[in-house]
Amino acid sequence: MSRSPGRKQENHKISRELFVLTYGALVAQLCKEYEKDEDVNACLDRMGYSIGIRLIDDFLARSAVKKCRSYSETADMIAQVAFKMYLGVTPSVSCNSVTGNEFSLILDKNPLVDFVEELPAERASLCYCNLLCGVIRGALEMVHLAAEVSFLQDRLKGDAVTEIGITFLRKPEDRKHRRN
Amino acid sequence: MSRSPGRKQENHKISRELFVLTYGALVAQLCKEYEKDEDVNACLDRMGYSIGIRLIDDFLARSAVKKCRSYSETADMIAQVAFKMYLGVTPSVSCNSVTGNEFSLILDKNPLVDFVEELPAERASLCYCNLLCGVIRGALEMVHLAAEVSFLQDRLKGDAVTEIGITFLRKPEDRKHRRN
Repeated sequence: MSRSPGRKQENHKISRELFVLTYGALVAQLCKEYEKDEDVNACLDRMGYSIGIRLIDDFLARSAVKKCRSYSETADMIAQVAFKMYLGVTPSVSCNSVTGNEFSLILDKNPLVDFVEELPAERASLCYCNLLCGVIRGALEMVHLAAEVSFLQDRLKGDAVTEIGITFLRKPEDRKHRRN
Repeated sequence: MSRSPGRKQENHKISRELFVLTYGALVAQLCKEYEKDEDVNACLDRMGYSIGIRLIDDFLARSAVKKCRSYSETADMIAQVAFKMYLGVTPSVSCNSVTGNEFSLILDKNPLVDFVEELPAERASLCYCNLLCGVIRGALEMVHLAAEVSFLQDRLKGDAVTEIGITFLRKPEDRKHRRN
Protein backbone atom coordinates (compact mmCIF):
# COMPACT_ATOMS: atom_id res chain seq x y z
CA MET A 1 0.00 0.00 0.00
CA SER A 2 2.96 2.25 -0.47
CA ARG A 3 2.83 5.16 -2.86
CA SER A 4 6.11 6.70 -3.75
CA PRO A 5 6.45 10.07 -5.45
CA GLY A 6 8.76 8.34 -7.89
CA ARG A 7 11.69 10.69 -7.84
CA LYS A 8 13.87 12.03 -5.13
CA GLN A 9 13.59 15.72 -4.36
CA GLU A 10 16.73 17.74 -3.86
CA ASN A 11 15.48 21.22 -3.37
CA HIS A 12 17.36 23.85 -1.43
CA LYS A 13 14.37 26.13 -1.18
CA ILE A 14 11.58 25.97 1.32
CA SER A 15 8.53 28.07 1.95
CA ARG A 16 9.16 31.28 3.77
CA GLU A 17 5.99 31.03 5.83
CA LEU A 18 7.14 27.99 7.78
CA PHE A 19 10.44 29.67 8.54
CA VAL A 20 8.79 32.93 9.57
CA LEU A 21 6.37 31.17 11.93
CA THR A 22 9.12 28.99 13.39
CA TYR A 23 11.26 32.06 13.95
CA GLY A 24 8.30 33.68 15.69
CA ALA A 25 8.02 30.66 17.97
CA LEU A 26 11.70 31.00 18.81
CA VAL A 27 11.38 34.68 19.70
CA ALA A 28 8.25 34.01 21.75
CA GLN A 29 10.08 31.28 23.64
CA LEU A 30 12.97 33.61 24.46
CA CYS A 31 10.52 36.29 25.58
CA LYS A 32 9.04 33.75 27.99
CA GLU A 33 12.48 32.94 29.27
CA TYR A 34 14.00 36.40 29.55
CA GLU A 35 12.25 39.32 31.14
CA LYS A 36 14.51 42.01 29.69
CA ASP A 37 14.40 42.80 25.99
CA GLU A 38 18.16 43.30 26.05
CA ASP A 39 18.64 39.69 27.12
CA VAL A 40 16.38 38.43 24.35
CA ASN A 41 18.25 40.60 21.84
CA ALA A 42 21.61 39.33 23.05
CA CYS A 43 20.43 35.73 22.92
CA LEU A 44 19.11 36.15 19.36
CA ASP A 45 22.42 37.72 18.36
CA ARG A 46 24.38 34.84 19.90
CA MET A 47 22.20 32.27 18.18
CA GLY A 48 22.57 34.13 14.90
CA TYR A 49 26.33 34.22 15.32
CA SER A 50 26.44 30.43 15.74
CA ILE A 51 24.31 30.10 12.63
CA GLY A 52 26.44 32.55 10.64
CA ILE A 53 29.70 30.74 11.31
CA ARG A 54 28.12 27.55 9.93
CA LEU A 55 26.16 29.15 7.11
CA ILE A 56 29.20 30.81 5.55
CA ASP A 57 30.49 27.51 4.14
CA ASP A 58 27.16 26.87 2.52
CA PHE A 59 27.15 30.40 1.14
CA LEU A 60 30.65 30.22 -0.32
CA ALA A 61 29.99 26.80 -1.82
CA ARG A 62 26.66 27.70 -3.41
CA SER A 63 27.29 31.28 -4.44
CA ALA A 64 30.77 30.64 -5.88
CA VAL A 65 31.51 34.31 -5.28
CA LYS A 66 35.00 35.66 -5.62
CA LYS A 67 36.89 37.40 -2.88
CA CYS A 68 35.57 40.90 -2.22
CA ARG A 69 38.14 43.65 -2.61
CA SER A 70 36.43 46.33 -0.57
CA TYR A 71 33.93 46.83 2.22
CA SER A 72 31.59 48.23 -0.37
CA GLU A 73 31.77 45.08 -2.45
CA THR A 74 31.23 42.99 0.67
CA ALA A 75 28.14 44.98 1.64
CA ASP A 76 26.76 44.55 -1.88
CA MET A 77 27.48 40.84 -1.72
CA ILE A 78 25.56 40.49 1.54
CA ALA A 79 22.58 42.40 0.16
CA GLN A 80 22.43 41.15 -3.39
CA VAL A 81 23.65 37.59 -3.07
CA ALA A 82 23.29 36.45 0.55
CA PHE A 83 19.96 38.09 1.41
CA LYS A 84 18.51 37.01 -1.90
CA MET A 85 19.76 33.47 -1.46
CA TYR A 86 18.63 33.02 2.13
CA LEU A 87 15.63 35.28 2.55
CA GLY A 88 14.49 35.90 -1.00
CA VAL A 89 14.75 39.68 -0.69
CA THR A 90 17.39 42.18 -1.79
CA PRO A 91 17.97 45.15 0.50
CA SER A 92 19.28 48.43 -0.85
CA VAL A 93 22.80 49.30 0.29
CA SER A 94 24.01 52.71 1.34
CA CYS A 95 27.39 53.80 2.60
CA ASN A 96 27.12 55.93 5.72
CA SER A 97 30.63 57.20 6.35
CA VAL A 98 33.43 59.01 4.55
CA THR A 99 35.82 56.40 5.91
CA GLY A 100 33.87 53.87 3.88
CA ASN A 101 33.45 51.25 6.57
CA GLU A 102 29.85 51.88 7.59
CA PHE A 103 26.99 50.58 5.52
CA SER A 104 23.27 50.19 5.80
CA LEU A 105 21.12 47.45 4.38
CA ILE A 106 17.68 48.91 3.88
CA LEU A 107 14.69 46.62 3.67
CA ASP A 108 11.42 48.04 2.37
CA LYS A 109 9.87 44.79 3.42
CA ASN A 110 11.22 42.44 6.03
CA PRO A 111 10.13 38.88 5.29
CA LEU A 112 10.81 37.77 8.85
CA VAL A 113 7.95 39.85 10.24
CA ASP A 114 5.26 38.76 7.77
CA PHE A 115 3.04 37.50 10.55
CA VAL A 116 3.92 40.12 13.18
CA GLU A 117 1.52 43.03 13.55
CA GLU A 118 3.48 45.07 16.06
CA LEU A 119 5.54 44.57 19.15
CA PRO A 120 3.61 44.40 22.42
CA ALA A 121 3.97 47.54 24.53
CA GLU A 122 6.01 45.73 27.16
CA ARG A 123 8.50 44.60 24.51
CA ALA A 124 9.28 48.01 23.04
CA SER A 125 13.05 47.45 23.07
CA LEU A 126 12.92 44.06 21.45
CA CYS A 127 14.98 43.74 18.26
CA TYR A 128 12.73 41.06 16.86
CA CYS A 129 15.01 40.14 13.97
CA ASN A 130 18.28 40.40 15.88
CA LEU A 131 19.19 36.88 14.79
CA LEU A 132 19.98 38.37 11.36
CA CYS A 133 22.59 40.69 12.87
CA GLY A 134 24.25 37.74 14.54
CA VAL A 135 24.20 35.71 11.33
CA ILE A 136 25.91 38.52 9.38
CA ARG A 137 28.45 39.09 12.15
CA GLY A 138 29.27 35.38 12.42
CA ALA A 139 29.54 34.86 8.67
CA LEU A 140 31.77 37.92 8.22
CA GLU A 141 34.04 36.79 11.03
CA MET A 142 34.63 33.52 9.24
CA VAL A 143 36.03 35.40 6.26
CA HIS A 144 38.16 37.43 8.67
CA LEU A 145 36.06 40.55 8.66
CA ALA A 146 35.22 41.82 12.12
CA ALA A 147 32.06 43.88 12.13
CA GLU A 148 29.45 45.36 14.39
CA VAL A 149 25.95 44.69 13.13
CA SER A 150 22.76 46.12 14.58
CA PHE A 151 19.33 47.42 13.70
CA LEU A 152 19.29 51.17 13.12
CA GLN A 153 15.62 51.35 12.12
CA ASP A 154 12.81 48.86 12.39
CA ARG A 155 9.38 49.04 10.81
CA LEU A 156 8.08 47.03 13.74
CA LYS A 157 8.93 50.06 15.88
CA GLY A 158 7.21 52.52 13.60
CA ASP A 159 10.17 53.47 11.41
CA ALA A 160 9.56 53.92 7.70
CA VAL A 161 11.98 51.15 6.74
CA THR A 162 14.02 48.44 8.38
CA GLU A 163 17.70 49.28 8.38
CA ILE A 164 20.59 47.07 9.42
CA GLY A 165 23.85 48.88 10.10
CA ILE A 166 27.17 47.15 9.43
CA THR A 167 30.37 48.75 10.68
CA PHE A 168 33.52 46.98 9.52
CA LEU A 169 36.17 47.15 12.20
CA ARG A 170 39.29 46.33 10.18
CA LYS A 171 40.33 46.94 6.63
CA PRO A 172 40.04 43.81 4.50
CA GLU A 173 43.49 44.54 3.06
CA ASP A 174 44.93 43.88 6.51
CA ARG A 175 43.50 40.42 6.68
CA LYS A 176 43.89 37.26 4.74
CA HIS A 177 40.61 35.87 3.53
CA ARG A 178 40.85 32.14 3.81
CA ARG A 179 37.85 30.62 2.25
CA ASN A 180 38.81 27.01 1.88
CA MET B 1 25.30 56.75 -2.20
CA SER B 2 22.31 54.49 -2.31
CA ARG B 3 22.24 51.51 -4.61
CA SER B 4 18.93 49.93 -5.17
CA PRO B 5 18.47 46.49 -6.71
CA GLY B 6 16.00 48.14 -9.03
CA ARG B 7 13.08 45.79 -8.66
CA LYS B 8 11.14 44.57 -5.73
CA GLN B 9 11.48 40.93 -4.80
CA GLU B 10 8.38 38.98 -3.94
CA ASN B 11 9.64 35.52 -3.38
CA HIS B 12 7.91 32.99 -1.18
CA LYS B 13 10.92 30.72 -1.10
CA ILE B 14 13.89 30.95 1.17
CA SER B 15 16.99 28.86 1.58
CA ARG B 16 16.51 25.70 3.55
CA GLU B 17 19.84 26.01 5.30
CA LEU B 18 18.87 29.13 7.24
CA PHE B 19 15.66 27.49 8.35
CA VAL B 20 17.39 24.27 9.36
CA LEU B 21 20.00 26.11 11.42
CA THR B 22 17.39 28.35 13.03
CA TYR B 23 15.32 25.31 13.91
CA GLY B 24 18.43 23.75 15.42
CA ALA B 25 18.90 26.87 17.56
CA LEU B 26 15.30 26.56 18.74
CA VAL B 27 15.71 22.91 19.74
CA ALA B 28 19.02 23.66 21.46
CA GLN B 29 17.35 26.46 23.40
CA LEU B 30 14.56 24.18 24.57
CA CYS B 31 17.09 21.54 25.57
CA LYS B 32 18.78 24.16 27.74
CA GLU B 33 15.46 25.03 29.28
CA TYR B 34 13.97 21.59 29.83
CA GLU B 35 15.87 18.75 31.37
CA LYS B 36 13.51 16.01 30.23
CA ASP B 37 13.30 15.04 26.58
CA GLU B 38 9.57 14.54 27.00
CA ASP B 39 9.16 18.20 27.96
CA VAL B 40 11.16 19.36 24.93
CA ASN B 41 9.08 17.08 22.70
CA ALA B 42 5.84 18.40 24.17
CA CYS B 43 6.99 22.00 23.77
CA LEU B 44 7.99 21.44 20.13
CA ASP B 45 4.62 19.82 19.50
CA ARG B 46 2.78 22.76 21.08
CA MET B 47 4.81 25.27 19.07
CA GLY B 48 4.16 23.28 15.93
CA TYR B 49 0.44 23.20 16.68
CA SER B 50 0.36 27.01 16.96
CA ILE B 51 2.21 27.23 13.65
CA GLY B 52 -0.08 24.70 11.96
CA ILE B 53 -3.27 26.52 12.85
CA ARG B 54 -1.84 29.65 11.21
CA LEU B 55 -0.11 27.95 8.29
CA ILE B 56 -3.28 26.23 7.08
CA ASP B 57 -4.69 29.48 5.67
CA ASP B 58 -1.51 30.06 3.72
CA PHE B 59 -1.61 26.47 2.49
CA LEU B 60 -5.22 26.59 1.35
CA ALA B 61 -4.71 29.96 -0.35
CA ARG B 62 -1.55 28.99 -2.18
CA SER B 63 -2.25 25.37 -3.02
CA ALA B 64 -5.84 25.95 -4.18
CA VAL B 65 -6.51 22.29 -3.37
CA LYS B 66 -10.01 20.93 -3.35
CA LYS B 67 -11.63 19.28 -0.38
CA CYS B 68 -10.25 15.82 0.28
CA ARG B 69 -12.86 13.08 0.25
CA SER B 70 -10.96 10.49 2.24
CA TYR B 71 -8.20 10.07 4.80
CA SER B 72 -6.11 8.56 2.06
CA GLU B 73 -6.49 11.65 -0.11
CA THR B 74 -5.69 13.86 2.87
CA ALA B 75 -2.51 11.92 3.64
CA ASP B 76 -1.45 12.21 0.00
CA MET B 77 -2.16 15.92 0.08
CA ILE B 78 0.03 16.40 3.14
CA ALA B 79 2.88 14.44 1.59
CA GLN B 80 2.73 15.54 -2.01
CA VAL B 81 1.52 19.12 -1.73
CA ALA B 82 2.19 20.41 1.79
CA PHE B 83 5.58 18.80 2.43
CA LYS B 84 6.75 19.73 -1.04
CA MET B 85 5.53 23.31 -0.64
CA TYR B 86 6.96 23.90 2.81
CA LEU B 87 9.99 21.65 3.05
CA GLY B 88 10.82 20.88 -0.55
CA VAL B 89 10.59 17.12 -0.07
CA THR B 90 7.89 14.58 -0.83
CA PRO B 91 7.52 11.70 1.61
CA SER B 92 6.10 8.37 0.53
CA VAL B 93 2.70 7.54 2.01
CA SER B 94 1.60 4.17 3.28
CA CYS B 95 -1.65 3.12 4.86
CA ASN B 96 -1.10 1.12 8.02
CA SER B 97 -4.53 -0.13 9.00
CA VAL B 98 -7.47 -2.00 7.55
CA THR B 99 -9.73 0.67 9.01
CA GLY B 100 -8.00 3.12 6.70
CA ASN B 101 -7.35 5.84 9.25
CA GLU B 102 -3.66 5.25 9.99
CA PHE B 103 -0.99 6.47 7.62
CA SER B 104 2.73 6.87 7.56
CA LEU B 105 4.73 9.56 5.85
CA ILE B 106 8.13 8.07 5.11
CA LEU B 107 11.06 10.37 4.54
CA ASP B 108 14.20 8.89 3.03
CA LYS B 109 15.83 12.18 3.79
CA ASN B 110 14.70 14.64 6.42
CA PRO B 111 15.71 18.16 5.44
CA LEU B 112 15.33 19.41 9.01
CA VAL B 113 18.32 17.40 10.21
CA ASP B 114 20.78 18.38 7.48
CA PHE B 115 23.22 19.74 10.01
CA VAL B 116 22.58 17.23 12.79
CA GLU B 117 25.01 14.33 13.04
CA GLU B 118 23.30 12.39 15.81
CA LEU B 119 21.51 13.02 19.06
CA PRO B 120 23.72 13.31 22.12
CA ALA B 121 23.58 10.25 24.38
CA GLU B 122 21.76 12.17 27.12
CA ARG B 123 19.05 13.19 24.65
CA ALA B 124 18.15 9.73 23.40
CA SER B 125 14.40 10.29 23.75
CA LEU B 126 14.36 13.63 21.97
CA CYS B 127 12.02 13.82 18.99
CA TYR B 128 14.14 16.43 17.28
CA CYS B 129 11.61 17.23 14.57
CA ASN B 130 8.52 17.04 16.76
CA LEU B 131 7.52 20.52 15.62
CA LEU B 132 6.43 18.91 12.35
CA CYS B 133 3.97 16.65 14.16
CA GLY B 134 2.45 19.66 15.86
CA VAL B 135 2.21 21.55 12.58
CA ILE B 136 0.37 18.66 10.90
CA ARG B 137 -1.92 18.21 13.90
CA GLY B 138 -2.74 21.92 14.08
CA ALA B 139 -3.33 22.30 10.37
CA LEU B 140 -5.58 19.22 10.24
CA GLU B 141 -7.59 20.45 13.19
CA MET B 142 -8.35 23.67 11.33
CA VAL B 143 -9.99 21.65 8.55
CA HIS B 144 -11.89 19.72 11.23
CA LEU B 145 -9.80 16.60 11.15
CA ALA B 146 -8.65 15.48 14.55
CA ALA B 147 -5.49 13.41 14.38
CA GLU B 148 -2.69 12.02 16.46
CA VAL B 149 0.66 12.66 14.87
CA SER B 150 3.98 11.27 16.09
CA PHE B 151 7.32 9.96 14.96
CA LEU B 152 7.34 6.18 14.53
CA GLN B 153 10.88 5.96 13.22
CA ASP B 154 13.71 8.46 13.14
CA ARG B 155 16.99 8.21 11.26
CA LEU B 156 18.54 10.34 13.99
CA LYS B 157 17.89 7.40 16.32
CA GLY B 158 19.42 4.86 13.98
CA ASP B 159 16.27 3.83 12.11
CA ALA B 160 16.56 3.22 8.38
CA VAL B 161 14.04 5.94 7.53
CA THR B 162 12.16 8.72 9.24
CA GLU B 163 8.48 7.88 9.60
CA ILE B 164 5.71 10.13 10.80
CA GLY B 165 2.52 8.36 11.84
CA ILE B 166 -0.84 10.05 11.39
CA THR B 167 -3.92 8.51 12.97
CA PHE B 168 -7.16 10.22 12.02
CA LEU B 169 -9.57 10.14 14.93
CA ARG B 170 -12.84 10.82 13.15
CA LYS B 171 -14.22 10.03 9.75
CA PRO B 172 -14.13 13.03 7.43
CA GLU B 173 -17.67 12.20 6.32
CA ASP B 174 -18.83 13.07 9.83
CA ARG B 175 -17.40 16.54 9.72
CA LYS B 176 -17.92 19.62 7.68
CA HIS B 177 -14.76 21.00 6.18
CA ARG B 178 -14.99 24.72 6.31
CA ARG B 179 -12.10 26.23 4.51
CA ASN B 180 -13.08 29.83 4.02
